Amino acid sequence: MTASPAESPSETAVPTSGVSRRGLLGLAGAALGGLALGGAGGAITASAVAATDTNTQYPFFGEHQSGIVTPTQDRLHFAAYDITPGTTRADLIALLEDWTAAADRLTRGLDVSETGAVGGPALAPPDDTGEAQGLPASGLTLTFGFGPGVFTDAHGNDRFGLASRRPAELVDLPTFAGDALEEASSGGDLCIQACANDPQVAVHAIRNLSRIAFGRASIRWSQLGFGRTSSTSKAQVTERNLFGFKDGTANITAEETDVVNKDVWVGGNSWLAGGSILVARKIRMIIETWDRTSLDEQEHVMGRTKGTGSPLSGGDEFTPVRFNHAGPDGRKLAMDSHVALAHPDHNHGARLLRRGYNYVDGNDQLGRLNAGLFFLAFQADPRTAFIPIQKQLGHSDLLNEYIRHVGSAIFAVPPGAKPGEHIGAGIFG
Amino acid sequence: MTASPAESPSETAVPTSGVSRRGLLGLAGAALGGLALGGAGGAITASAVAATDTNTQYPFFGEHQSGIVTPTQDRLHFAAYDITPGTTRADLIALLEDWTAAADRLTRGLDVSETGAVGGPALAPPDDTGEAQGLPASGLTLTFGFGPGVFTDAHGNDRFGLASRRPAELVDLPTFAGDALEEASSGGDLCIQACANDPQVAVHAIRNLSRIAFGRASIRWSQLGFGRTSSTSKAQVTERNLFGFKDGTANITAEETDVVNKDVWVGGNSWLAGGSILVARKIRMIIETWDRTSLDEQEHVMGRTKGTGSPLSGGDEFTPVRFNHAGPDGRKLAMDSHVALAHPDHNHGARLLRRGYNYVDGNDQLGRLNAGLFFLAFQADPRTAFIPIQKQLGHSDLLNEYIRHVGSAIFAVPPGAKPGEHIGAGIFG
Repeated sequence: MTASPAESPSETAVPTSGVSRRGLLGLAGAALGGLALGGAGGAITASAVAATDTNTQYPFFGEHQSGIVTPTQDRLHFAAYDITPGTTRADLIALLEDWTAAADRLTRGLDVSETGAVGGPALAPPDDTGEAQGLPASGLTLTFGFGPGVFTDAHGNDRFGLASRRPAELVDLPTFAGDALEEASSGGDLCIQACANDPQVAVHAIRNLSRIAFGRASIRWSQLGFGRTSSTSKAQVTERNLFGFKDGTANITAEETDVVNKDVWVGGNSWLAGGSILVARKIRMIIETWDRTSLDEQEHVMGRTKGTGSPLSGGDEFTPVRFNHAGPDGRKLAMDSHVALAHPDHNHGARLLRRGYNYVDGNDQLGRLNAGLFFLAFQADPRTAFIPIQKQLGHSDLLNEYIRHVGSAIFAVPPGAKPGEHIGAGIFG
Repeated sequence: MTASPAESPSETAVPTSGVSRRGLLGLAGAALGGLALGGAGGAITASAVAATDTNTQYPFFGEHQSGIVTPTQDRLHFAAYDITPGTTRADLIALLEDWTAAADRLTRGLDVSETGAVGGPALAPPDDTGEAQGLPASGLTLTFGFGPGVFTDAHGNDRFGLASRRPAELVDLPTFAGDALEEASSGGDLCIQACANDPQVAVHAIRNLSRIAFGRASIRWSQLGFGRTSSTSKAQVTERNLFGFKDGTANITAEETDVVNKDVWVGGNSWLAGGSILVARKIRMIIETWDRTSLDEQEHVMGRTKGTGSPLSGGDEFTPVRFNHAGPDGRKLAMDSHVALAHPDHNHGARLLRRGYNYVDGNDQLGRLNAGLFFLAFQADPRTAFIPIQKQLGHSDLLNEYIRHVGSAIFAVPPGAKPGEHIGAGIFG
């Protein structure tokens, strides 16, 4: 259960005695904190515990942003923002400064400012909305991204003098076969991914950061998620998506330092070096149709068994897949199965670091659960990663009968901020 | 942290070694299980732990249904169903039998049937959708209720021969001042409240129970929630709603056996004896307006301080409130504050057992979080509990400026089922 040493401060879980919002921690938290995180800093210890532990802390400042290779937390609140018309370059910088100060505090389990929820003047609105008072940091990470609209607005105007700073990797995603995108869950000039082991902590962070943005940016769309479906550490158990299958078996994990450096972090010397490109896709699952499909067909479509997650070509969950190869029960792993089409061998070696979350947004008017996978993928360059993979999947994946991509967005995720610096400072040159 | 002995089997947390879906429990679960639940059955031990522990189990069968006085779990998936036209009395009984068998298994951390997710014929759809494979019981409770439509349909027809069995307590709720009810989150012939310490377990239960209902009932509306805002055990810490205030300080708790027997369980000898009446209200919070209100005003409106939750009339969180009495800082607890108007002293002693959950359903088109409180209240008779209280609150509550009731439903919650019997059997006489 012990992982290899973390590569940067942004992946380091820190014991939190004395720095949580509440001095008196619940018995559960206290016991786990002592049990799992008593060791010295600098290493991920017992991530399977950390992922559900509310005492875990990840520092906001570091070489890379937290929330990417950080062991996937259990809960998500993701928000995409539109920058308010009339906002100036100076306003945008001020917003990023304000967000940075708040993010540093929130990820330490503190209120959004020093006066916080109840310490300010009685005749003024409190700085903090207060619903996280008493809750520990809960492994909160806040990951910020810049959408295409930061560089030029919808009319092509260079509103912030940043047009020349747009990274080549931040492409406009092409239309993929089978896309059924809805404006209401697509796009955005800025994004914040809040991951935590307590939904109230993630919601509190997005709410207060949105409040800080008032007059400069407002939420365009947002998404709650639960159930980490893509582990990002070898110490984590592979969780299941709402099709009932293990999801993320072959995901990039923090321990694969070479792969992370090559395929996740942007290289070179640009302002984006040490950052990444985030592709967000809201994938509605037509789960009622799926649920009426035979086990055999479900496994044929996925290319893996539903129980253990082993490839149909044989072995256990982590056995490499063998295409067109019959496993012990005589079934072949089909070339148009999901696992085959998404495999690096069929995508020039392209790999993604995924952080998907299951979502249920109530039900639709036919009484069907409005549910699916909120897919988040980090990569150095989507032109050689998400885009070719999704082109192939969109055309041929057997799974397409059961899914519909309803939301899409892309963001350049800057490297981590240094203390004293605001997030994304490099973009301003 | 140790509560008094539980009053019925339905409140009893049971250690689960060997009976969870997965033999290999995560370190977190195993540690907590040993720590908190190692004692003999029959008592709630360390509920503050149990509420976030995934190993807790509550039996489905018992004198009362679980999920009422059970220590409030952290996550909710609530579903209201319409009975499909053409469904007969025999069909309805068969549905309740099927739901009972499934609920008994699900609450024990098992798949919905013996063949489950992967054990059935390969050429048939699996009985279980599979996303909870490997997850322990997670304190799941499933609480079933009958709406007015079970007794007579929308046209007044006695479709199941049950019209004469409608309890007097199951009234149609009157229209309250300030109601802004939406059809899409109101009403329902049947309901299931799924509470668990893991959202994936609650969602899995509702999904599979909905699947079982196919052709007989379908989801009319559903709601996810998080953050137990109303503790139902003295061993639980009072959590906060999205206004940032502690919520449920004066709630009825399981330990108050006399109050529970008088105010929560229906008495007498009717089929509903040992059951309760559930009122569900979806209360949208206008949080942006609230967030711009001064701390002083917020505390004046609530009648309590935002930090500790103490009444403005002085003392600590649990000090009895003194109306129109000035506390140590000179502020009076206003007669039209929320705490004063909802107080039993101003409602002929009426008390409710609340199980509210915070919700965030993404955002609206103006970028405001679509958030609030999903209020669930159990009581022996709403005519002397929820209705008079809400009439008073609807007219005078200072809080009305910041909330809007958008959903409403009422259900008769039958007593617990005995093994071998289906839930709600008594209704059929």
